[in-house]
Order: sequence, then structure tokens, then C-alpha cells
Amino acid sequence: MKVSELSAASGVSLATIKFYLREGLLPSGTATGRNQATYDERHVHRLRLIRALTEVGKLSLRDIRRILAAAEDAAIPVHHLLGVAQAALEPEPPTTADPAEVAAARTTIDEALSALGWDVDDRSPAVTTLAHTVAALRRLGWDVSPERLVRYGSAIDALASEEVSIRDGDAPREAVVERMVVGSVLYEGVLTSLRRLAHEHHSARRG
Amino acid sequence: MKVSELSAASGVSLATIKFYLREGLLPSGTATGRNQATYDERHVHRLRLIRALTEVGKLSLRDIRRILAAAEDAAIPVHHLLGVAQAALEPEPPTTADPAEVAAARTTIDEALSALGWDVDDRSPAVTTLAHTVAALRRLGWDVSPERLVRYGSAIDALASEEVSIRDGDAPREAVVERMVVGSVLYEGVLTSLRRLAHEHHSARRG
Repeated sequence: MKVSELSAASGVSLATIKFYLREGLLPSGTATGRNQATYDERHVHRLRLIRALTEVGKLSLRDIRRILAAAEDAAIPVHHLLGVAQAALEPEPPTTADPAEVAAARTTIDEALSALGWDVDDRSPAVTTLAHTVAALRRLGWDVSPERLVRYGSAIDALASEEVSIRDGDAPREAVVERMVVGSVLYEGVLTSLRRLAHEHHSARRG
Repeated sequence: MKVSELSAASGVSLATIKFYLREGLLPSGTATGRNQATYDERHVHRLRLIRALTEVGKLSLRDIRRILAAAEDAAIPVHHLLGVAQAALEPEPPTTADPAEVAAARTTIDEALSALGWDVDDRSPAVTTLAHTVAALRRLGWDVSPERLVRYGSAIDALASEEVSIRDGDAPREAVVERMVVGSVLYEGVLTSLRRLAHEHHSARRG
């Protein structure tokens, strides 16, 4: 299809498509003339993916570029791609935290992870983020025990296992990364929205 | 305590405290002289709350101001405060979505909410956000059934019920709002981080 048809099929404006092509977020089409190229369904899909991650997932183009670059870098083994994607998604930890409070939070988290039977790298960015969150809750007077973390972990364990199960099988590399990132970002949104609706429901019942 | 002691106790710089005072995010201290005031534990706590919401929850000062203003506005009934807080937290929906796709997603969500037995206002911002997320997943080829949403909802139902249970009892108004907002924002972070660690664990087991 022509670039104008690609724009119509994806709902992305011509100017934005040209910008993504220049920035390498969208692969070039097949050249059919000096200033012409044709595009196919893979381009439509890639544009939908970028739209979903920017508009719904609120990711920056910089983070999306890092994730897509990892997907295309054959030197990165597939089982490391999740880590690259997660590092791109993780927020910077606050710089003002008290190291002793963060260390105490990490001890609680280690106990919880061990009780959950989860084998994770203790340098994972998600561990750092969680430690800062637990430290902040405690500063506000909340009692965050390992048992409490285990209850939250147990609640989402089966769903998370299913979300990464796409790794089985012989899906092409880019499809695997897409499932991981979309599963991580968009289903995180599903979970967050449903949790807010659950709050509304349970709060109204008590109201 | 003096403002310098308030700064030391909260870990917030003097310049930032003065900014929060000017902006009305932090209530004034008790005047003890022309240019002097004393502060107490409530000020320390308020500063920790603002820090947690900005640094860990990534909320803007504008959103925090809206939430705190609602907490202090006695004309807003306590059982409406959760709605005000949620509206402040909810992202703007994308403007480029296809209305037919979003409407189809809402039908799926209504079925799921009804199966979950959740009684929520269908104008809730979380319903709108969820509809856009479901529409985006479908555009990318994911099959999002009502049953799938019910499984996510069921996973967090008991935890969400507990998170709003503070509404029982005679806690002061500001304490209720704080529990709601902190419970919503910071425990959302706990859940997100644990979910990423679960992905890492389950992915490594398959790797």
C-alpha cells in the first residue's frame, strides 16, 4: 500500500509516519521509485503498537526506541529481552531516600520473595522501585510486612505466569518482544483500572 | 519545632518547604513572631505524604493540590472523596481512538463488571481508561474476553476490599483521604513491581 493508505489504515497522520520513518521507529517500505515506497501489514501493525505504547501505555518515544532496538539486536538472547524491556519501563528511583530505610525495605522484600519462591536477580530495577515504595509507606506509618507483600504477590502470580507463557513455542523474535511489552504495559493498565473500579465498588458498599 | 527542624525531620529542603507554604500545599505554622512560626508532627507527616506522592507515586503537585483541597472541603461527603481522588489520578484518554472500537470495549467491560458483581458508575474515569486499553489490545490482535477481565478483577478483589476498609470507624477526614490516596497510589506501585518480578521469575523458569 502507499503511504497515504498506510496512514488511513493505522489512523496515524502522514506527518507522524514520516517522523517515525526518519527516527527509525518504523522500518522503511520497499522502494518503488525515486520518492515512493510500498508498505504492508507489518507497517500497519508496528504503527498500532507505537500508538498503543504512547497513548495508552504513556511510554516515551525514547523508551519505545530502546525496546524496539533490543528486539532487533540479534546479539541479545530472547530470555534477556524481558530484562531490557523492564529496564526501559522502570522509573528512576528517588534520590532523596534514606539508605537505611531502603535497606530495611529490601530485607522485607527478600523475605517475601523467598516465601513466594520467586527466583529473581536482586539487582532487578523492580526490586529497587519496590524498596523505595515500601520505605515511603513506612515513613507514612503503614506497616508493610513480608506477609503482606506475599499476599499481593500471590494474587497476581498465576496471571503473570500466563502473561509470559508466550515464550514457549517458535514465535519470531519481534513477536515475542511485542507480547512481553504489550503484556507488561497494557495489562498493567487493565489491572490498575480494574483495581480502581474494585475500590469504587467496595467503597460504595460501605458508604 | 522551627522551620529548620521541620526541614531536618522531613528531609525536605527549606526552599521547598517555603514553596509548599506559598502554594498552600503545607498549612502555615503557628505564628510566634513577625517572621517566625512553629511546626508540629502534622507538618512533618504532610511533607512525607507530598514526598511519597511526588517521588514514588509520580503525581504532579497540581494533582496533589486537587486531592488535598478535596480532603479539606467539608462540603464534599467522605464517600465522594474516593471519586475526586481517582479523577485526579486518571490519565487523559487518547483523542485518536475509534469510537466504535471503544464502544465495543465498553460492552465487554459491562459484561465483566456484571459477572464480578461490581456496582460502579459507568461514567467512572477508570471505565473510560479501561475501554481505551481494551480497544488498543484488540487493535494489536489480542483477544480480550469478558472472562479474561473477570479473572484479573477476581485476582485483586479481596485486596481492594481490604484497601478501602479504613472507611469504617471514626478516623478524621484527612486521615481517611490519605489512606485512600496512599492505598491507591503506593499499593498500585507495590502491585506493579511485584508483577514485574513475577514476570522475571516465570520467564527465567522457562528460559
